[in-house]
Amino acid sequence: MTTDLGRFLIRLDREIRADGDWGAPADYIPELARIDPAQFGIAVALADGSVVTAGDADKRFSIQSISKVFSLACVLGRIGEQIWTRVGRESSGARFDSILLLEREHGRPRNPFINAGALVTTDELLTGRTPRDTLSEIINFLRAAAEDDDIHIDKTVAQSETETGWRNAALVNYLKSFGNLKNAPEETLGTYIHHCAIEMTCVQLARAGRAIAGLPGAPSVIAPAKARRLNALMMLCGHYDGSGDFAFRVGLPGKSGVGGGILLIAPRRASVAIWSPGLNVYGNSQMATLAAERLAQHMGWSVFG
Amino acid sequence: MTTDLGRFLIRLDREIRADGDWGAPADYIPELARIDPAQFGIAVALADGSVVTAGDADKRFSIQSISKVFSLACVLGRIGEQIWTRVGRESSGARFDSILLLEREHGRPRNPFINAGALVTTDELLTGRTPRDTLSEIINFLRAAAEDDDIHIDKTVAQSETETGWRNAALVNYLKSFGNLKNAPEETLGTYIHHCAIEMTCVQLARAGRAIAGLPGAPSVIAPAKARRLNALMMLCGHYDGSGDFAFRVGLPGKSGVGGGILLIAPRRASVAIWSPGLNVYGNSQMATLAAERLAQHMGWSVFG
Amino acid sequence: MTTDLGRFLIRLDREIRADGDWGAPADYIPELARIDPAQFGIAVALADGSVVTAGDADKRFSIQSISKVFSLACVLGRIGEQIWTRVGRESSGARFDSILLLEREHGRPRNPFINAGALVTTDELLTGRTPRDTLSEIINFLRAAAEDDDIHIDKTVAQSETETGWRNAALVNYLKSFGNLKNAPEETLGTYIHHCAIEMTCVQLARAGRAIAGLPGAPSVIAPAKARRLNALMMLCGHYDGSGDFAFRVGLPGKSGVGGGILLIAPRRASVAIWSPGLNVYGNSQMATLAAERLAQHMGWSVFG
Amino acid sequence: MTTDLGRFLIRLDREIRADGDWGAPADYIPELARIDPAQFGIAVALADGSVVTAGDADKRFSIQSISKVFSLACVLGRIGEQIWTRVGRESSGARFDSILLLEREHGRPRNPFINAGALVTTDELLTGRTPRDTLSEIINFLRAAAEDDDIHIDKTVAQSETETGWRNAALVNYLKSFGNLKNAPEETLGTYIHHCAIEMTCVQLARAGRAIAGLPGAPSVIAPAKARRLNALMMLCGHYDGSGDFAFRVGLPGKSGVGGGILLIAPRRASVAIWSPGLNVYGNSQMATLAAERLAQHMGWSVFG
Repeated sequence: MTTDLGRFLIRLDREIRADGDWGAPADYIPELARIDPAQFGIAVALADGSVVTAGDADKRFSIQSISKVFSLACVLGRIGEQIWTRVGRESSGARFDSILLLEREHGRPRNPFINAGALVTTDELLTGRTPRDTLSEIINFLRAAAEDDDIHIDKTVAQSETETGWRNAALVNYLKSFGNLKNAPEETLGTYIHHCAIEMTCVQLARAGRAIAGLPGAPSVIAPAKARRLNALMMLCGHYDGSGDFAFRVGLPGKSGVGGGILLIAPRRASVAIWSPGLNVYGNSQMATLAAERLAQHMGWSVFG
Repeated sequence: MTTDLGRFLIRLDREIRADGDWGAPADYIPELARIDPAQFGIAVALADGSVVTAGDADKRFSIQSISKVFSLACVLGRIGEQIWTRVGRESSGARFDSILLLEREHGRPRNPFINAGALVTTDELLTGRTPRDTLSEIINFLRAAAEDDDIHIDKTVAQSETETGWRNAALVNYLKSFGNLKNAPEETLGTYIHHCAIEMTCVQLARAGRAIAGLPGAPSVIAPAKARRLNALMMLCGHYDGSGDFAFRVGLPGKSGVGGGILLIAPRRASVAIWSPGLNVYGNSQMATLAAERLAQHMGWSVFG
Repeated sequence: MTTDLGRFLIRLDREIRADGDWGAPADYIPELARIDPAQFGIAVALADGSVVTAGDADKRFSIQSISKVFSLACVLGRIGEQIWTRVGRESSGARFDSILLLEREHGRPRNPFINAGALVTTDELLTGRTPRDTLSEIINFLRAAAEDDDIHIDKTVAQSETETGWRNAALVNYLKSFGNLKNAPEETLGTYIHHCAIEMTCVQLARAGRAIAGLPGAPSVIAPAKARRLNALMMLCGHYDGSGDFAFRVGLPGKSGVGGGILLIAPRRASVAIWSPGLNVYGNSQMATLAAERLAQHMGWSVFG
Repeated sequence: MTTDLGRFLIRLDREIRADGDWGAPADYIPELARIDPAQFGIAVALADGSVVTAGDADKRFSIQSISKVFSLACVLGRIGEQIWTRVGRESSGARFDSILLLEREHGRPRNPFINAGALVTTDELLTGRTPRDTLSEIINFLRAAAEDDDIHIDKTVAQSETETGWRNAALVNYLKSFGNLKNAPEETLGTYIHHCAIEMTCVQLARAGRAIAGLPGAPSVIAPAKARRLNALMMLCGHYDGSGDFAFRVGLPGKSGVGGGILLIAPRRASVAIWSPGLNVYGNSQMATLAAERLAQHMGWSVFG
């Protein structure tokens, strides 16, 4: 399969670059806004232990919201199902940074993958320890999952978001006003911004997703039952208000970030990382979404039959 | 597998009846409100062509919203992807009969499984033919899919809903006011109410779902690519604002109806129908949801790994 | 004062016609959509019993939502403050036909001047009598208030709205689904549509408003305390989500209709009717609003000092 | 009139204290939460220059949101109508600290009397000067209007609100994210919190309102046309989502604060300050509202006839 997949990825990389409809990078984080959108990378970690790649698969990018999957994994590992008293697990039917539903639902975010929800899981993780230790826990989880210690925070991106992240500052203060924040708003927000600013390559990210995909030989960083739940959440809420569209077209759980990355899980078959910085209307990578659709179709990986 | 499954279903039936936390029947359709909630049936159609059952699997119940899957299948068969100009495919994050999002999104329902969306697909199906012919098309689809001609509309239920279905009357007029209804509101509403009033047994429904599950030997009533899309929609939106909870607990696409039925699809493995008339807070069958969770877990059928 | 006012009105009529920025007639009632917007009339009933006019002050127009003031007056006369259990008296902060707040507030409309609220007051008035008798009560109230029997329903407008008023059909069914409608939806809606289709001239309407303005010598059709309350409601909610703008610019209570009319009350000083069929963005008459502003300023009639 | 009014106020004070249904002090500002609710004061500044009082009319209280009237007066004095590009003048139909409408209307608050709107007017006032100078301008305006230099900020209240005002911190960051804030969020918020923490007596506040009421002999701190506009805004939006109820019952423009104060304007007749710290469901003083209703009725001061 590896050889066939390799050929397919090379062709896919060529097609994506020929297509040229890259979308625009996230404009609300200045440091991300200046990235050239005409880039594309893909890495597929398979059940046989191999990783097949194409394009800019070794270039580091800001994983942004994809980090929410791993911070949630850490929380599930520590307190398990208790987290659902503070955050729901339903689609929000709204943009990733919407504050509207939060008012209607009295400060309990709809799911852990919208910003408000991820602030809550970060806050839970931060409780009883320092921001530095909390960030270490998340990074160490990623390093163990990817079996690669060369994973770090991009401090320039973190700084850039700290200076302009007023929407998230609004969300975190709003959560605090409802009593759904245990720490000082600025501490939770700072920790959140920093784990979103982790940078990884497609190869690293695909390897970090192997345990979630339940691949044989993956490091046992998460229990299989919890991995299934992460996949369910990614399927339902992984792409904000474009989640239905993604499920419909791709048929696999995934999580996108405004840095242009997508982590895509084909349960028991593969963990995939795709990156292209230009975004579509939902704030998901335009070309990474297209590539995910073509890959899933070519491989017959849809979980829906 | 059949024998093991048979034993499991018998035990499951016994456990469900012993549990006794039945929930309450739908109260807004008088004819459904008077049904005894303490009933339970299950039928599992397998890839080997067998159907394994337990409990009240041969008792007819009102399929209600489960009919939305089949009316959508008919529409996809007739006009294909064009339907998505009139209705979206995202979770609504709201109750099944919410009118709120409809205002914000100018009359385009979020998905075909909330009432507003199903009114639109019914309206599309009705265009150019009579209500009678439209209903025949849906029923004939079900009969062909189930390979069973003994499937009919329960006219008492249809009548009961016609007399009290003001919320749906509001929705259909609201759609008309936005120009997203081609027929007279009362004609579309009447056709919708009647296909919701189709009654089936668990055995019939499980058999009708075989094509959607892509089981070998199933009647070819729907193309595999379209069946996958139905499954994606059921996974994302099949249980209203309890869809995330269902995906999280069960891990399979499904569609519930306020009559207490759930159609559950394990792609390539099984088509399952479960029925118990008492509902939970989301308006989905309380005991059928529990049974779905236990069945999926016992069989290891989660699509999420 | 009459002579000065007369001269002012003639100049105002000339200025309005010279301005030419008429706005567009209501487009959602076909019969109203075809009216020439370049028309303007004004009538001012004064405390001395005189009525001063200019322009098309004797031309009949469809009073539409202005009728809501008089149907509410009838309800207050019959059941008094009890009506506030079914409808609120706060601004809605939303369009006249919004259904959104109705969902959030469980079927209790924010005030009696948005469509949903007026449907409730009409429904209350209809309870225990026929639509015909209910309409007679409203028309007889208007005739007594105006001391003019030549006030009638324009059946062509009523028919036109009956055929296309899906938004109102949605609202009335929605109210019914919340249990906030005592009669059959189509009966309440029909009665509502017919009282909105009453046609009057500016002279008739200005005279009908004298009791609400508390002018000496006005027919005693409403108690002074109730008249004050109607004025308070008109001030707060008389122009939908343009009410603040109107209060800010004009400083007097008023009620607009999509037929282009405005009833304007200067308490203890004057009752004014202005008509011009073109509407502004809020659905209020563009030129009648401008004329109201200039009249109030010229006469120093603002209630705000 | 003074003597009769004096007797009425003494009786009113006695009735209010006998009633005993005081409501509860604002609970979200710790420093205000511990105030004894069983207090009541009233001061009426009349057109003849006299000030009639009863109860705790010389006790200082935190004017809180009443300061929004005066900060808006300063902004109108400086940039006039331009402020309406940044903030609307319509009722919000929502609670004073709602963030919901802000999302739907892209960061432009509905009016200057909800918290988000007052943050915008404060921000405008702050532009080009220091927080200290901005606060001096507002306090100097109040001192000039009241002809009393003994008006100060209660720093304990300001400190208390700074430590717990997460909802306002959310709002100010949210405004910044929409580009509707010129200064750093914490600077605008700090200035806002400090002018809300101004403390005054009923006598001082009634005197400060004389110019807004257009009383003869009042210091000319605001042009009459602008005073009328402040009154219009107070009438429409002065009591949050209880504004309609207040207009209906009292019939006069007014502005409440969560410290329990109400500034009440009877144009050309009187400027009234009433204080009682217990609040009703809308967050307005329960007993001050009742006193306003009785005073307006006794004096026949309703602007509605």
